[in-house]
Amino acid sequence: MPEIPDLAQRLRDFAAARDWEQFHTPKNLAMALAGEAGELLAEFQWLTPEESRAVMSDPEAGTRVRREMADVFLYLVRLSDVLGVDLAESALAKLTENDRRYDATAFHGSARKAPPIT
Amino acid sequence: MPEIPDLAQRLRDFAAARDWEQFHTPKNLAMALAGEAGELLAEFQWLTPEESRAVMSDPEAGTRVRREMADVFLYLVRLSDVLGVDLAESALAKLTENDRRYDATAFHGSARKAPPIT
Amino acid sequence: MPEIPDLAQRLRDFAAARDWEQFHTPKNLAMALAGEAGELLAEFQWLTPEESRAVMSDPEAGTRVRREMADVFLYLVRLSDVLGVDLAESALAKLTENDRRYDATAFHGSARKAPPIT
Amino acid sequence: MPEIPDLAQRLRDFAAARDWEQFHTPKNLAMALAGEAGELLAEFQWLTPEESRAVMSDPEAGTRVRREMADVFLYLVRLSDVLGVDLAESALAKLTENDRRYDATAFHGSARKAPPIT
Repeated sequence: MPEIPDLAQRLRDFAAARDWEQFHTPKNLAMALAGEAGELLAEFQWLTPEESRAVMSDPEAGTRVRREMADVFLYLVRLSDVLGVDLAESALAKLTENDRRYDATAFHGSARKAPPIT
Repeated sequence: MPEIPDLAQRLRDFAAARDWEQFHTPKNLAMALAGEAGELLAEFQWLTPEESRAVMSDPEAGTRVRREMADVFLYLVRLSDVLGVDLAESALAKLTENDRRYDATAFHGSARKAPPIT
Repeated sequence: MPEIPDLAQRLRDFAAARDWEQFHTPKNLAMALAGEAGELLAEFQWLTPEESRAVMSDPEAGTRVRREMADVFLYLVRLSDVLGVDLAESALAKLTENDRRYDATAFHGSARKAPPIT
Repeated sequence: MPEIPDLAQRLRDFAAARDWEQFHTPKNLAMALAGEAGELLAEFQWLTPEESRAVMSDPEAGTRVRREMADVFLYLVRLSDVLGVDLAESALAKLTENDRRYDATAFHGSARKAPPIT
């Protein structure tokens, strides 16, 4: 499986071959990422919680969800490459912070006290 | 560096220790991801394109951007784990499709004919 | 109660008094609107459908929801003013189109065949 | 021109005629609103600030922008109706608060110190 640096390289080559670096400002990439997150959201908006758990068992909806997730991921990788941010390292740092911030006993069974990951 | 499966495992343990699997429906995770994408967006909304390219040189803004990107990534990894979607494989499939869809000559210098990555 | 043109005038004066017209490009306003829509989303992300129906009965959550909705509305009014779009007229045109597009019998009880309002 | 209560009534009738009240939980409507805000965003993502100011002079892009704004507005009106929130009154309260919060002299020419409307 490709790792994040491989995907970043592919996206870099893709943009260079089309002279699209000019469009890939961090501002524009953050917009594109949010737009794709909105499309992913739309796949779930009328589903009950239970239906959302079963979404991949519908081949058409499953394919759309997989593609929207790929779009979000690709824009995130491209943005991290343009900004020089190490995505895996940043995620790890945030995880360590969350472990400290959300004590397993104090927050047991309650996501409402605070968002789980932020 | 951790790879995606390592992060997914950490998030799985994190949710289990707090009994938060009940909140982590795909619907809710897609909402959380979009909310974090909105926070990332907010970091760039008043910046000129040029200022957005330099955002990491401001330590405070840089830290916020890195953290919001980590949040988006973590929710995306968690969602992919809950849905059983292979994020790296899906991204690779989308990249291959994009190579075919956006001919390097026909789309040279013009992102406006179509969104670069979708 | 103020109508949309009154709110647009208030926002125009507000921006002029602070020399903020320079920041209020349609691109930036669309970003700000989406960012506020993300904050509104975050108020509902961990709620069950039933809890979301009762959100206004919690004074603190109710206040936050009301404020986020106001933010979305204000940016939408400001954007419509900057672009010269008549919001009420556009909404009416869309309603008429939706009446035609979503036949009341064919779409009875099923939002899944198509998004209700789009 | 229709005012907000007229639009709310139209949307109420529209949902009732299709038995769609069941889908119109505040949670789902907030998701739909954010999804439409993402589509609006996508209209601007590759435009320069200057191009975004001229977007309505392109008939096709102008039509799309007007329709996406209508969608955001309609979901916001529907959400406010379901929650019993007075949108115009809430916006007015927020405007008054913003007048106090963003002193015209202290924030002159600088949107970066704080987001203009929040």
